[in-house]
Amino acid sequence: MSGKEFFATLSVHEALAGFRPCRRTGVEAVARDAALGRAPASPVVSDAALPGFARSTVDGYAVRAADTHGASDALPAYLDLAGAVRMGTAADVAVRTATAVQVPTGAVIPDGADAVVMVEHTQVTMPGLVEVTRPVAVGDGIVRADEDVAVGTEIASAGRPLRAHDLGMLAAAGVTEVKVRARPRVAVVSTGDEVVLPEQVQLSPGQVRDATASALAGLVAEAGGEPSVRGIVPDDVEALTETLNAAVHDCDLVVVSAGSSVGARDETTAAVEALGEPGIYCHGLAIKPGKPTLLAECKGVPVIGLPGNPLSALVVFRLVGLPVLRMVGGITDPPPEPSTTATLSRAVASAAGRLDVVQVRVRDGVATPLFGFSALLSRLTSADGYVVVPDAATGLDAGTPVTVTLYR
Amino acid sequence: MSGKEFFATLSVHEALAGFRPCRRTGVEAVARDAALGRAPASPVVSDAALPGFARSTVDGYAVRAADTHGASDALPAYLDLAGAVRMGTAADVAVRTATAVQVPTGAVIPDGADAVVMVEHTQVTMPGLVEVTRPVAVGDGIVRADEDVAVGTEIASAGRPLRAHDLGMLAAAGVTEVKVRARPRVAVVSTGDEVVLPEQVQLSPGQVRDATASALAGLVAEAGGEPSVRGIVPDDVEALTETLNAAVHDCDLVVVSAGSSVGARDETTAAVEALGEPGIYCHGLAIKPGKPTLLAECKGVPVIGLPGNPLSALVVFRLVGLPVLRMVGGITDPPPEPSTTATLSRAVASAAGRLDVVQVRVRDGVATPLFGFSALLSRLTSADGYVVVPDAATGLDAGTPVTVTLYR
Repeated sequence: MSGKEFFATLSVHEALAGFRPCRRTGVEAVARDAALGRAPASPVVSDAALPGFARSTVDGYAVRAADTHGASDALPAYLDLAGAVRMGTAADVAVRTATAVQVPTGAVIPDGADAVVMVEHTQVTMPGLVEVTRPVAVGDGIVRADEDVAVGTEIASAGRPLRAHDLGMLAAAGVTEVKVRARPRVAVVSTGDEVVLPEQVQLSPGQVRDATASALAGLVAEAGGEPSVRGIVPDDVEALTETLNAAVHDCDLVVVSAGSSVGARDETTAAVEALGEPGIYCHGLAIKPGKPTLLAECKGVPVIGLPGNPLSALVVFRLVGLPVLRMVGGITDPPPEPSTTATLSRAVASAAGRLDVVQVRVRDGVATPLFGFSALLSRLTSADGYVVVPDAATGLDAGTPVTVTLYR
Repeated sequence: MSGKEFFATLSVHEALAGFRPCRRTGVEAVARDAALGRAPASPVVSDAALPGFARSTVDGYAVRAADTHGASDALPAYLDLAGAVRMGTAADVAVRTATAVQVPTGAVIPDGADAVVMVEHTQVTMPGLVEVTRPVAVGDGIVRADEDVAVGTEIASAGRPLRAHDLGMLAAAGVTEVKVRARPRVAVVSTGDEVVLPEQVQLSPGQVRDATASALAGLVAEAGGEPSVRGIVPDDVEALTETLNAAVHDCDLVVVSAGSSVGARDETTAAVEALGEPGIYCHGLAIKPGKPTLLAECKGVPVIGLPGNPLSALVVFRLVGLPVLRMVGGITDPPPEPSTTATLSRAVASAAGRLDVVQVRVRDGVATPLFGFSALLSRLTSADGYVVVPDAATGLDAGTPVTVTLYR
């Protein structure tokens, strides 16, 4: 952000495009097999050609292709068997005109050979003599020394979390350690005089256990971050400011569930304002649920104030918080999310200019919206996924084909 | 498996339906916030009603709905302000006829109230007197004490890996620890005289680094298992038998990359046969790549022999090994996989009766098959996902709409 821009309410699209804190996590080296899901800080380039030597792709005989021209069952080509290549060793014999060398799949192609005949197209009726019953062309049955990877080829790209098969490729290239972005450390701060720790067995009337912190920590971990749960702060500006100040100092992203009452939200706003420059970026999003969302950058650390009720907080953190988390953690090419297409079982109302996130259950290609009071967490846990009604739409008719983003 | 049935070659569908080892991992208790992605061993039921008390869903005034009938801007209902409820505490005042009690969002509904008027529909022009300008119906602005979850409701199902918001729900219900299936311990055994550890810097001619073990370990971890990489065994029946015997004793699933040559595969078969009853279930799958796949159950532990080349091994482990891994780990309702629909850029050939797995790149809704020698790992790492050509099809025409399963 250049200078301080303050917006009362922004669309989700505007917020994601405009809120670009420059915080990035550092670079650390991790062992290859511990790098699953981690984002390389820079492209990884292979020092080696792969497979590294010309290899046979079949069990058979290395030959000169020209020696097999015209070979058939009726008129085989007869080649002298000059030897065999053992797996994992150099060939100690070369192929000359009218000779063949036995090679198993994956073995080194001997000097002089330019093709391999599959064993299925050969017969050995006399010891030392190979009958070839099919012709081969130059290159048949051979993978070139750099056909998989040439020296200098990029084998893992920056910002794309490493997949299982990427680790295989890195192993093949002899890469033992990868420079990746550190996991963003995300402070999860809960507020609210009514909120108590989940461990509290007996509740007094009016108290509720903190559902948001555990769920946010899970979302953070799934997205490649390292949650740091900071506990529950009473609705008190000074206590909250102190907690946020500490969080901004040792985390890469700070998330506050900001209390559900207007008063609690005002206190969160005041505490964030006290944190430092450039301060609050926007103070509401045109999204339902999730309108009272606050985005700020304080002392170089993005701060997200979430609505007080767990469902709204989780919906908006998924849509707005995770992109910020990925940005901070250098994940520029996030993994695809599961989704499905379905038709809406009934109409969904929405206001133009507002993005609506509708929890749905999906059965047999039909998405059934789950309605009811928006703060109920059970609506989220019983949903298979959600449908986004775009800003411009004033609702979706029953029967509309929709894309459902599925919860994993 | 009841008794020993041996099949030379099965379709993938037949193998998945018929190969049902009874091995299951044990049950262990883990702390709730460490249970992300873990599969509950049995349904989790809430001991508590949630939210646990009738709560206000808005900032406003708790009233008797009857007192607001007919209220309007022109003719407000006048109610005596009897007090206020503080967040997180019991209400110390009740609502009587013609009185109102101030409540913030989330606060306890005082005795006697049956609705809450939003503050936006009220005015306080004289201290102690609330003017209500809209009528409310019974229940407006209130969430019932068990509206989110009633006592005895299932809040997490057995066999469904816990999602972030499930952890939130468990926290809300005061669940601190969850009984989950232990992660299946999966032995990853590599074979092949040509295969060396990825850490080996200088290779002799004919040697290749082990790509498969790292990638398999990654797939196992992603699917909720705990990989145990056992290193590289030379192509020698006795050495392999010894390694497999040890693996069968301390793992829940054993995976062997079985060597690429016919000889190496024979040795794997012999070693698996030496392990114990009921032994080999099938000895080939009608899948490309991946035909030389072996499924066995030895001493109660499933054993999977994979093709020697890394790409084939990974393709077949994803399609056949991961379902076995999930079965052993009690994951009966796996998370959805990301996918997309696209049209094929060109025709793909296949044989009837064989399932073909085609690596594709996807751009702008067009899936482009990546062809070339099947053993090249770069084909997998440069793919966005894969298309399955079903057993019955003899190929797919260019322009066919296909579902691409996307790599995460």
